[in-house]
Amino acid sequence: MTRTVVESKTKTAIIGFDEPFCVIGERINPTGRKILSEELERGDFSRVEADALAQAAAGANILDVNSGAVFSNKMAEDPRYADNNFVEPMLMPELINRIQAVTDTPLCIDSSVPGALQAGLEACEGRPLLNSVTGEEERLELVLPLVKKYNVPVVAISNDDTGISEDPDVRFAVAKKIVERAADFGIPAHDIVVDPLVMPIGAMATAGLQVFALVRRLREELGVNTTCGASNVSFGLPNRHGINNAFLPMAMGAGMTSAIMNPVALPVNQKKIAEKKAEVLAAGIILPDGMDDETFVTLFGMGSTRPRPGKEMEAIRAANLLTNNDPNGGSWIQFNKVGGQPGEATSGRRGGRRRRA
Amino acid sequence: MTRTVVESKTKTAIIGFDEPFCVIGERINPTGRKILSEELERGDFSRVEADALAQAAAGANILDVNSGAVFSNKMAEDPRYADNNFVEPMLMPELINRIQAVTDTPLCIDSSVPGALQAGLEACEGRPLLNSVTGEEERLELVLPLVKKYNVPVVAISNDDTGISEDPDVRFAVAKKIVERAADFGIPAHDIVVDPLVMPIGAMATAGLQVFALVRRLREELGVNTTCGASNVSFGLPNRHGINNAFLPMAMGAGMTSAIMNPVALPVNQKKIAEKKAEVLAAGIILPDGMDDETFVTLFGMGSTRPRPGKEMEAIRAANLLTNNDPNGGSWIQFNKVGGQPGEATSGRRGGRRRRA
Repeated sequence: MTRTVVESKTKTAIIGFDEPFCVIGERINPTGRKILSEELERGDFSRVEADALAQAAAGANILDVNSGAVFSNKMAEDPRYADNNFVEPMLMPELINRIQAVTDTPLCIDSSVPGALQAGLEACEGRPLLNSVTGEEERLELVLPLVKKYNVPVVAISNDDTGISEDPDVRFAVAKKIVERAADFGIPAHDIVVDPLVMPIGAMATAGLQVFALVRRLREELGVNTTCGASNVSFGLPNRHGINNAFLPMAMGAGMTSAIMNPVALPVNQKKIAEKKAEVLAAGIILPDGMDDETFVTLFGMGSTRPRPGKEMEAIRAANLLTNNDPNGGSWIQFNKVGGQPGEATSGRRGGRRRRA
Repeated sequence: MTRTVVESKTKTAIIGFDEPFCVIGERINPTGRKILSEELERGDFSRVEADALAQAAAGANILDVNSGAVFSNKMAEDPRYADNNFVEPMLMPELINRIQAVTDTPLCIDSSVPGALQAGLEACEGRPLLNSVTGEEERLELVLPLVKKYNVPVVAISNDDTGISEDPDVRFAVAKKIVERAADFGIPAHDIVVDPLVMPIGAMATAGLQVFALVRRLREELGVNTTCGASNVSFGLPNRHGINNAFLPMAMGAGMTSAIMNPVALPVNQKKIAEKKAEVLAAGIILPDGMDDETFVTLFGMGSTRPRPGKEMEAIRAANLLTNNDPNGGSWIQFNKVGGQPGEATSGRRGGRRRRA
């Protein structure tokens, strides 16, 4: 059975047909995270480190590292900073070094800039996953040589020079072309993880059925592992977690073997705490002086101010059990025993996390 | 595409390949519910009526009516009451009459006593679902003539005189035999809803994979609708809802079209309220005098003291959306807009429910 091996210096993550689902944590990504971009511009990597640890603690098997930051202030001083081909090859190795210093979770080097991919490969210990190649001719010719040279697995996104097709047969054909082109470079199919592209279900009612059918074909006909940006499916709809929680087990049932997603539940923020306190006081409840926020949100069933595994992780654990990828239910029982804190994910770093708390 | 039509006097429920998943509410079942059995023995049907309304309000499309009560007190006076063949044919029509008086949700007549099935068929308005026939010779010869005579659909459970096989191929063969025998009686395959039997995943690690494969075969090779006792899969394991919530979307992805299940979330009970109050007081919080239980459990995020849709209903709604059985996401948006109270399920009975509250 197909196995894609991803490694840090000391730890292995396997994406495979007969393996528990592989969760690739998506949080380390400055795209659209303005505060994170500004911090990185100032050389502040504390949030990156915290995100790495929180995702690993929540059960991420691999951490995606995206270097797509926009350095607005530096750009004003030096026009070269307007070009991602300039920024990302510098930023990527720094991100990787910082993350490798705090966690041994294997990494996924994520950039659309080939120079950043190469710089990441140089900085990364072990055998990272490369993210990504597409069916576009230029990308194929730039990225596949790196995949071959560094002997790493790669995410293959099924769009090409004509864009993203709404026809799943076309997306399958693009994936097939990438696998064949990779073979020309001597790259085996088990080192290619295909992303069949998940459309928002709100925009395309057949988006779910398309993905499930594509995953099945990719697995049976091409023998490749699969991944996707899982939360895309619920874009624009209410209660996105409710949709994601059903989508992930269904995709796993169809044979999907990994996803790029957020494993961490959103911590309760100050605004919600203030709103709840107002509601509580209006109901005539008197709180003791100096009650800390974490005690408050826990008592009032609001969740936690600290990062913890999201509901999606529960759905994935249950689906692992239901696909016979959790022998004797050991992982399920452990997950539920410790209040949703998967022990195994933190085993190597528990001491480090405690010190940070 | 296969459609199984189930009807009350005024309302239709369709189990079908291209239909939203059909939820068959399981609550009206005195088996193992001692308090309910005692109430029924005294002629008190209030809990049955409340269960019928709560399940319909939570989104049940069909209500299962099981007459398997044990009348311990009457048994002491009259030994005939020890025999379910005596008790159930009397009880079933009474249950059905009471339920039909308060809700127009179509019914499923559930008994292992053929006399109770027949009495139920006589009492039931519309076109109920009959539950069940098995591959046992005696059951086939007793139940199929009723199915034919009353022109109703039937649940076919895939065990036979040799018991329940752990081999899915045997269970498929039993289902095939029932479909073929039914054809001999002139009963079409679209009036047979096969239950492939779900084993507990804690006892058999392949139970999930077995069911998904069986459902696919039953759909593709026999063209029949399918159902199951969904909660069986999580028997004996912690956080059963977490497992059920993943199982249902996965089964739907494999093509399952209905399930016998509890659509209603367990209301918060007095014990849990007392425990929480103790915890709250210990934290130094002062509650106002006379705060009612519902206000308390709502404020402290414990759920509700009133029946409401269970988490499984959210998973099913999301999976309906993901299998293109929720045009434009209308049902999903409505479900989330009204705080999990599906408007359409109560539309015909809303007045009645309000009066009961």
